[in-house]
Amino acid sequence: MRLRLDLAYDGTDFHGWAAQPGLRTVEGELTAALGRVLRLPQDPSVTVAGRTDAGVHAAGQVVHLDLAEEVLAGAAGRSDRDPLDALLTRVRGVLPPDIALHRVARAPEGFDARFSPLQRRYRYLISDDPAGFDPLRRRDVVALRTPLDPGVMTEASALLLGLRDFAAFCKRREGATTTRTLLRYDWRRTPDGLIEATVVADAFCHSMVRALIGALVPVGTGQRDLRWPLEVLGAGVRDPRVKVMPAHGLSLVEVTYPDAARMAERAATTRARRPS
Amino acid sequence: MRLRLDLAYDGTDFHGWAAQPGLRTVEGELTAALGRVLRLPQDPSVTVAGRTDAGVHAAGQVVHLDLAEEVLAGAAGRSDRDPLDALLTRVRGVLPPDIALHRVARAPEGFDARFSPLQRRYRYLISDDPAGFDPLRRRDVVALRTPLDPGVMTEASALLLGLRDFAAFCKRREGATTTRTLLRYDWRRTPDGLIEATVVADAFCHSMVRALIGALVPVGTGQRDLRWPLEVLGAGVRDPRVKVMPAHGLSLVEVTYPDAARMAERAATTRARRPS
Repeated sequence: MRLRLDLAYDGTDFHGWAAQPGLRTVEGELTAALGRVLRLPQDPSVTVAGRTDAGVHAAGQVVHLDLAEEVLAGAAGRSDRDPLDALLTRVRGVLPPDIALHRVARAPEGFDARFSPLQRRYRYLISDDPAGFDPLRRRDVVALRTPLDPGVMTEASALLLGLRDFAAFCKRREGATTTRTLLRYDWRRTPDGLIEATVVADAFCHSMVRALIGALVPVGTGQRDLRWPLEVLGAGVRDPRVKVMPAHGLSLVEVTYPDAARMAERAATTRARRPS
Repeated sequence: MRLRLDLAYDGTDFHGWAAQPGLRTVEGELTAALGRVLRLPQDPSVTVAGRTDAGVHAAGQVVHLDLAEEVLAGAAGRSDRDPLDALLTRVRGVLPPDIALHRVARAPEGFDARFSPLQRRYRYLISDDPAGFDPLRRRDVVALRTPLDPGVMTEASALLLGLRDFAAFCKRREGATTTRTLLRYDWRRTPDGLIEATVVADAFCHSMVRALIGALVPVGTGQRDLRWPLEVLGAGVRDPRVKVMPAHGLSLVEVTYPDAARMAERAATTRARRPS
């Protein structure tokens, strides 16, 4: 059987998602908690929707985990509790305070946390008012010293939408395509006075969101014109003038999956297009 | 001459506002930064609007500082800069990341950070949805496991408004009055799904906000009825059934001063009523 876990984390004190020997990672902490609660001989392996980098946060990360029925049943011990409820409560009790487990559920047939998503939504937060910076937000808001114009940034961002080769904003990986569909990219001023970018795509290559943000910031300050990010994209190679923005402004907010009926079909399509 | 400083801080890693030998406090860090930038033989003393406890945050704290004109002039060094701008920039450069200095200005005649305020506004944040808790907010949001009803809490809070003796919600101090005017106390659900209390009074005695919050939480869960906090208040003594809520949910948001013309008059009135 396959479980779907929904979780959130403050990425500040982690060396990113992926388990690495001797380093504190979200995957490492999560699988250690699962292994302990389920009394497994070794920590289970999990598959994640978005492998976030060091310092990147998540409000809506999704993972899947395969388990034998009897192992899950063991989570409730001798109580009458629903084993999924028992697992949720007990894993919450073991996780550190910078990881919150929101939900544990049986995954629908054909569900794959990594390959089934229709889209992933990221948020990037910037304070462009140095005088008004809130120290409580310094873990997830990047402070800049120049005011930004979210209207112009949204106009420029809209030029990048659609199915395109994002090689200019990706770290090259042998044999991996850099073609993605950018579904949404816009900017607004929040009620707190912050600048918030929303970026949605079917999937992202490594460091793509932070490079996309970095391409738009100079448009927002007036340093570059509205068509500059599109020109960078068109060149098809990484441009040293694009600053990859700091990790701590970035959060994975939501991963959207198809309804249960189309789950397996979606995973098969994605897998065929993106060799892992 | 007297300066007014507006600042914000993340109270998590401070032993409160007030300087204490050997402990990291907001006052200690601020006066050390001022002493260093102004090259004073010893750190200057400052007067604060709200002496926040350990773990309490501030978005709109106000202090005043008395300086000789020539000391301030020295802040700009040999440059042509406005000495207040120079002081602001240089103190920002020296302060740790959990303190943000928002503004430095000449105080109006008769201004006293502690005695001139007309009112102080505090915010208290609670997450009543354990499943949805955002780990990035664990420094300023208190997690409870029971859903709260902000409508009922606002009704019950309204019964406490006005000029009253808040002895039931104050730590006793010899010779100090516990009479205060509670100007506003209400509860709402924020767009993020948090529960936010707003509490405004002319002034607060020690631990009063956290005790007021603690008196309303059991009303919000349905454990106590709507008139219970008023009964506690009426008894005039601390009630062990009222749980003083954790410090980290609390922030001093705003201190309101009268216009310049009425500043000195306000300070004189307050000082007469509340022997320090």
